This record gives sequence, structure tokens and C-alpha cells, in this order.
Amino acid sequence: MFREEVEAFMRQFQQYLVQALETCDGGAAFKADEWQHAEGGGGVSRIIENGAVLEKGGVNFSAVHGQLSPSFLKMLEMPDPQFFATGVSVVMHPHSPMVPITHMNVRYFEAGNGTAWFGGGIDLTPIYVDLNQARAFHEAMQEVCAKHHPSYYPEFKKWADDYFYNQHRAETRGVGGIFFDRLMATEEFSLEQRFAFVRDVAYAFAPAYTAIINQNRNLAFGEQEKQWQLIRRGRYVEFNLVYDRGTKFGLATGGRIESILMSLPQYASWVYNHQPAPGSAEEKTLHYLKKDIDWLSVEV
Amino acid sequence: MFREEVEAFMRQFQQYLVQALETCDGGAAFKADEWQHAEGGGGVSRIIENGAVLEKGGVNFSAVHGQLSPSFLKMLEMPDPQFFATGVSVVMHPHSPMVPITHMNVRYFEAGNGTAWFGGGIDLTPIYVDLNQARAFHEAMQEVCAKHHPSYYPEFKKWADDYFYNQHRAETRGVGGIFFDRLMATEEFSLEQRFAFVRDVAYAFAPAYTAIINQNRNLAFGEQEKQWQLIRRGRYVEFNLVYDRGTKFGLATGGRIESILMSLPQYASWVYNHQPAPGSAEEKTLHYLKKDIDWLSVEV
Repeated sequence: MFREEVEAFMRQFQQYLVQALETCDGGAAFKADEWQHAEGGGGVSRIIENGAVLEKGGVNFSAVHGQLSPSFLKMLEMPDPQFFATGVSVVMHPHSPMVPITHMNVRYFEAGNGTAWFGGGIDLTPIYVDLNQARAFHEAMQEVCAKHHPSYYPEFKKWADDYFYNQHRAETRGVGGIFFDRLMATEEFSLEQRFAFVRDVAYAFAPAYTAIINQNRNLAFGEQEKQWQLIRRGRYVEFNLVYDRGTKFGLATGGRIESILMSLPQYASWVYNHQPAPGSAEEKTLHYLKKDIDWLSVEV
Repeated sequence: MFREEVEAFMRQFQQYLVQALETCDGGAAFKADEWQHAEGGGGVSRIIENGAVLEKGGVNFSAVHGQLSPSFLKMLEMPDPQFFATGVSVVMHPHSPMVPITHMNVRYFEAGNGTAWFGGGIDLTPIYVDLNQARAFHEAMQEVCAKHHPSYYPEFKKWADDYFYNQHRAETRGVGGIFFDRLMATEEFSLEQRFAFVRDVAYAFAPAYTAIINQNRNLAFGEQEKQWQLIRRGRYVEFNLVYDRGTKFGLATGGRIESILMSLPQYASWVYNHQPAPGSAEEKTLHYLKKDIDWLSVEV
């Protein structure tokens, strides 16, 4: 069955990614927590804490089935409450403010009426925007998309800009990346082709992120950079709790709270009306937390 | 006009409360930020930072009018988009984990069709539950309610239990207090009587909270208590961003972001799957973060 094939991929991808991040970190192992979903299925959360680079992070696999609540059905515009969902969700919070936060997710959803789709995305949240790295990161996203369709990168890059957005602050979460949802079988693409794209996205994540870790892990920083990191993490918390659909879906479908909220950082800060000093590196970063920046041709 | 009388009370109450908290803190002054609402009216945020007791806190006054968005109209079950709202909102985050976080709010709302009501509440979020203090705090709430109607305390205490609740963790935010909304003119109560109750609630806050501050401000604490405080503050952030209607209303009606989010603490923490040690003071506190505890007769 296709569903089982996708689930098997997700399980295997989790193991691969844990291995890749553990090797890159070099200071701590991911622990494993298995959990069961009340209605059926469950997951495995792999959590790293106090690594050499990664302060806190998770690589979560889940494969659950059950019935959506009426309010959630309405939100998803679904006719049938039965669902099956499997995926891997990743958030990494490094110790150093010089190493960006990152998030990635690949997921597959089947509704009771047989409708099935893939979704996913990768996005980068630097505490300090480095234009070369943002460009290289988007080039990697562009490359994996281009293998499957020329429209994928421009479309999914814009989707990420619109999705990873703190509306109430008119501020993107970071420099974006790609985001896509409801990639169904169409006349143009079979579900197998969508799956092939999602596999490639999944395997593009570790090389792109570990390259940035390795470039930045030894950069010096001080108290000012650490404070700015805590503030930027506060914005990350705002996005995840106010807007993130994965978080909402998890809470609404009785997901495991600790696995869903592993996305929140070890430490975060809110400073009343914080305004970076004019001309500072912090102010420069804010300047780049905007939608619709063409990262592939950004002038460095 | 009644509306203007209520607005004048809210302004005056803000000044009184800032004075009372400043005197109690003794280490810092509240600064003032005035802001204008896009559609009409505005507010004054009074913010304290790095006081002797209070690490971060706000006493916000606002009086705004405008039009509610269609989705918000539906949520409030209102027929007419015109609204006027005035109130004072307060959150205090002390430095010491031995001093509880607190929140209070009094508000008045007028819909375009002339419907008008009061709302408000006071609740206490101890990092470590002290049964004597929780009882004394609820006695103060009971006393102010009893002056106006015998049903008020039991009804509004239950409402606070149900409202200040992190559903996803099956955990109350703290030891509750009172919460009420849509107190309209009825056969039993005139709008003036509702207003008299709200004024009494407002003036009951400072004595109840400053008594607790003064009892606890010199209690010793260490690293373990500080870590627990950061985790409890994380839960506070979860409640405010996921559930709090005041926050949602503020964000949806174009309120001033920094005034709305002054409720978030200077520092907070999320630790994966944190479990207090059996028999610890932290575990004892979790035991009391439940609905429907009768604090007036709790055994100490």
C-alpha cells in the first residue's frame, strides 16, 4: 500500500536525519521517546539537548489515524472526518546566536474519502542575516525544486514568505525557504511524483543546514548577540503558538504535547518595545525580515 | 454620557494603580507610552522594568472605537460592527520565583446597537503555591464579590478556573481568582450597579497583590527555583498566545502590539518533557494547578 510505503520512508528518513545531525553536532546523542496516539498509531520523538552546537532540537516522526473534530474538519474543508497522517517534523535551536534556527517538515495526509496529499517545507531563521548564506540556502532549495518542476521554487518560496510570517509584527520569521501543502495527484503530477519531490526535499535539508552550522559554529559572540538571540526566539515562539498550523493540528488532534512543543526554545525573552540601535547588525537583520526578497539575486 | 464616565474611571484607576505598585516596588518608576488607534482613540501604556521586585510589568489603559472585522463579529456573536471599548489591563512578572505573577483586567464594551457590558477579572499565578496565600487571595475576591451579589464569587471563581486553563496540558495557569464577562443591565442589575462592582474589583487588586509581594519579597531562592519559574513562565506564554481572548481581541482589532504583548515575561524557558522530582515543592505546586479547588476551605 502507498500509505505504508510513505510511512516507511518517514521512519527511515528520521533515522538518517538523526544520524546526520548527531554527527555534525558531535557533542550529544538524540534520546528517543515513543508514544501512542489515543485513536491509533503513534510516533517517536528524537530529542537532542545540550549538544556541542544544538542547545535543543527535535526530529519527530509520527503516523497517526483517527477522526477529525467538526471544527477542525471545517478549517481543513474536509468532507470526511477519517484521516491518516504521517510525517517528520524538525526544529533545531543552536546555542550560538551565530548559528540560525531551522525548521523542516515533510508530511503525507489521507482523508477518509481517499483524497491524499503531501506537504512540507524547509525554512531558515538566522539571528543575524548573512546574505551569502541566505543566498546559498535558497540556491539549495531552488536546486531541489528545479529537478521536479520550474514553477516549484518560485511558488513554494512565495508560500514560505506568506506562511512563516508574524502578521501582528509585519515581520517574517527568518529568511524563508520553501513551503508547500496539498500536493495531490493531478493531470500533471502523479502522487508518486509528488512523493519523489518530497523525498528530495527531505534529503536536501541536512546538507544545507550542516554546511551553515560548520561555517558558523566557531564564530565569536558576546552578551549583546545572546540577548538578540533570546528576543528573536521570542518571535519564534509567537509564530509557533499563534500561527503555526502544524502546532494547531497537533493540539487539535490529541497529538503528544511534548513532541509538538519541542519546537519552543530552551530560553526566550520578551523586552518591551525593543528597538535595535540605528546602523547596528540587529537593525540590518530586521531590514531583511521581509516578504518577497529575491534571495537568489540578493546583492552581497 | 455613561461611556465617558467609565473611560474617566479607567484613566483614573490606571494612575492610582501605577502609584500603588510603584510605592510597593520601591526600585523603579513606570514609564509612559501614549499611542493612537488607527480608527479612533488610543491608550497609555505604563511599563515597569527592572524594579526592586517587578522585573517586568504593565498597567495599560485604552479607550478605542472602530469597526470589528467580520470574523471577529462572528466570534463575539455581534450584529453590528461598530464598537467602543475601554479598560485597564495589568500583568506583573516579579524577579523572584517566590513572588507570584499576577494579572488583572477591567473593561467596558459598547456595541453599535447600544448593547453594553462590563468584564474583568483578577488571577494569581504562583510559581510555588502557598496554600495560606491562595486562601487569603480568594477570601479577598470573595469579599469584594459578596458586597454585590452572593452568586458572584462562586460563579466568577468557576469562570476563572475554566478560562485561565491550558487545555493542551490539562493545567490551570495558577490558582485562579475571578473572571467575568458580558455583565449587562438586567432586571436584577442596572449597568450602574455592574459598574460599581467593577470599580470595587479594580480597587481590590492592589491590596491583595501588594500584601503577597510584601510577605514574599525577601524569601530566599536558588537556581532550582529560578529554573522552575522560567518553565512556569513558559506556560504563561502558552496561555496568553494560544487562548487569551484579550490578546486575540487586541491583535484582531489593530491594538498596539507592544502594549498587548507586555504580558509576556522578560525570560521564559521550555524544557522538553520536564517532570518535577517526586515529593518536590515543584510537584506539589503542579498538584494544585487544577480546576475546582475550593480555595476558601483548602486545608493548610
